[in-house]
Amino acid sequence: MSRTLAQVGEFGLIDRIHEIIRDEGVALPKNTLGIGDDCAAFQPRPGYDLLITCDCMVENRHYLPQFISAHDMGRRAMTLNISDVGAMGGRPCYALISLGLRSDTLLEDVIAIYRGFLMELNPFQAFVIGGNVTKSTGANFIDITLIGEVESGKMVRRSTAKPGDVILITGYPGQSAAGLEILLQSESGKTWGDNPLITAYQCPSHRAVEGHAVAKTALANAMIDTSDGLLGDLGHICDESGVGAELYEKDLPISRALRQFAEASGGETLDWVLKESDDYELMITCNPEHVAHIRNTVTGISHTPVTEIGNITANKGGIEIVGYNGDSRRVELSGWDHFSK
Amino acid sequence: MSRTLAQVGEFGLIDRIHEIIRDEGVALPKNTLGIGDDCAAFQPRPGYDLLITCDCMVENRHYLPQFISAHDMGRRAMTLNISDVGAMGGRPCYALISLGLRSDTLLEDVIAIYRGFLMELNPFQAFVIGGNVTKSTGANFIDITLIGEVESGKMVRRSTAKPGDVILITGYPGQSAAGLEILLQSESGKTWGDNPLITAYQCPSHRAVEGHAVAKTALANAMIDTSDGLLGDLGHICDESGVGAELYEKDLPISRALRQFAEASGGETLDWVLKESDDYELMITCNPEHVAHIRNTVTGISHTPVTEIGNITANKGGIEIVGYNGDSRRVELSGWDHFSK
Repeated sequence: MSRTLAQVGEFGLIDRIHEIIRDEGVALPKNTLGIGDDCAAFQPRPGYDLLITCDCMVENRHYLPQFISAHDMGRRAMTLNISDVGAMGGRPCYALISLGLRSDTLLEDVIAIYRGFLMELNPFQAFVIGGNVTKSTGANFIDITLIGEVESGKMVRRSTAKPGDVILITGYPGQSAAGLEILLQSESGKTWGDNPLITAYQCPSHRAVEGHAVAKTALANAMIDTSDGLLGDLGHICDESGVGAELYEKDLPISRALRQFAEASGGETLDWVLKESDDYELMITCNPEHVAHIRNTVTGISHTPVTEIGNITANKGGIEIVGYNGDSRRVELSGWDHFSK
Repeated sequence: MSRTLAQVGEFGLIDRIHEIIRDEGVALPKNTLGIGDDCAAFQPRPGYDLLITCDCMVENRHYLPQFISAHDMGRRAMTLNISDVGAMGGRPCYALISLGLRSDTLLEDVIAIYRGFLMELNPFQAFVIGGNVTKSTGANFIDITLIGEVESGKMVRRSTAKPGDVILITGYPGQSAAGLEILLQSESGKTWGDNPLITAYQCPSHRAVEGHAVAKTALANAMIDTSDGLLGDLGHICDESGVGAELYEKDLPISRALRQFAEASGGETLDWVLKESDDYELMITCNPEHVAHIRNTVTGISHTPVTEIGNITANKGGIEIVGYNGDSRRVELSGWDHFSK
């Protein structure tokens, strides 16, 4: 029977976390100082810039514990940070993990979360270099700072898209949001059985290896991950680059599972593809002549499809969607306000 | 009248935070990428190792909002991270800040917290490079990741104390805990008036400039900050260095305010000096012949006293306190378990 943190105590928890990191994580390189002093320390590699991102997942806000296992929660929290590093063209190296945990949290759940972190870090030979645990009186939270590196001069920003660029997208955005919707509906008695959309919610993939490879080609003008949804992140590219975009509805990649779900649920398929969804696909813009090279770079790494969905325009801040009938309509980007609800 | 976060919304809050960082923080150096892309980025300086620490402060656990202003809370949260960097011999460079905030939090309080961060960062020409805000459903929290740099080969660890070393301490540990006790007592009707101990709780100092200077001398064998209390952190040095220690009660630095408070409250003065207290003093061990040089290094920077309080011994894991009468007694290090209460 698993014990709670109140039963094992803070030091019991920390000892167990250190064991897991030591036994199941990647060994620390020489000249690197992990957990155990006032700070962690490492020697940066000459010729590389450092990338840093931090993201916080709060229980019942960013994840619903009834729909996702502790292990998948750990994977997902690390995946979204790895995705940010990959979207700049880098690879992850060092993670610092801050956990806020209630006393009634089960030790085995914390261990499972950590195993989720390591499952995502180990393939990159990246490791947990520091962190802390603190008692939470409300919702549990997972706050990760991830440090990565990118070859100097190869970083790809969101602010450097150019009019005339082709917009490329990897995979099938929108699947994660649809998967969550299925789970929410199933709670009220409706069952959907096994579904790739549910997998997309519980265990989303990142495209960091692909992003790193694309950056090395130096052929991408802008890159971003789709963590705010396809349209939200295209909006970020347009805002930051001072450009506009047009998307072709007929070209948007829609998985068979998503199409079936949208039809069965009576919703607009387009909404699922475009709106906020916790997928971690890459959106890349590049000169049309480089599309083939970038696509081959991605597909040389994984079976992830790369789809041309539109173009960057000089129409600053304007995003238009060209429908099946050729009519174009302007899209309003409405932000998602987390404090108002 | 100040508005709540529910009223200004997430984007209103983020815009205001960006304004504060831009207008009141240090300007970003060239080749450094701050808030606004998937990651922040910087070019590490050749010849320096990087230091990283993260610490989380949770409302009602690590700070009691009725006793500390939002501005001081921001200062304190940053101070404890700066102290960790200084205790390794480094100087702070880049901060990432993750805030968990309830919807009823006042915008002006968040602004005050940020001004507190900047007040501590600006003197180091250090800046906020990234972060995020998330809605909290329970207690508010401030989670800071601080990145510093230290000249390669100059880092001072806690694991390298040597038998025969003198133990030095800066300032007057224990004042912060006594200040909190005064505030707690005053809540039940007892008043103490203005008191330097209350200032020590609300606005503790770090010794990062001194720590950086001490590291540059290359004469300190071990260094740590006293965030776990004098005895707790001496215990860390002994554990990690595989040594023991003896402390002389007569030599422990006790401020007049702390002595008066201990006498008036009927408590043991020694307990206040030794036990857990949120002071951020430095404990340094060095060969006896280097004491004068290290003391001069510290007092050349500030009026912080540096006191010899004992010696490192070969008695692995054993800490003895030699009393006024010459009798020595072994100290048991009892950990503070945050989950059991």
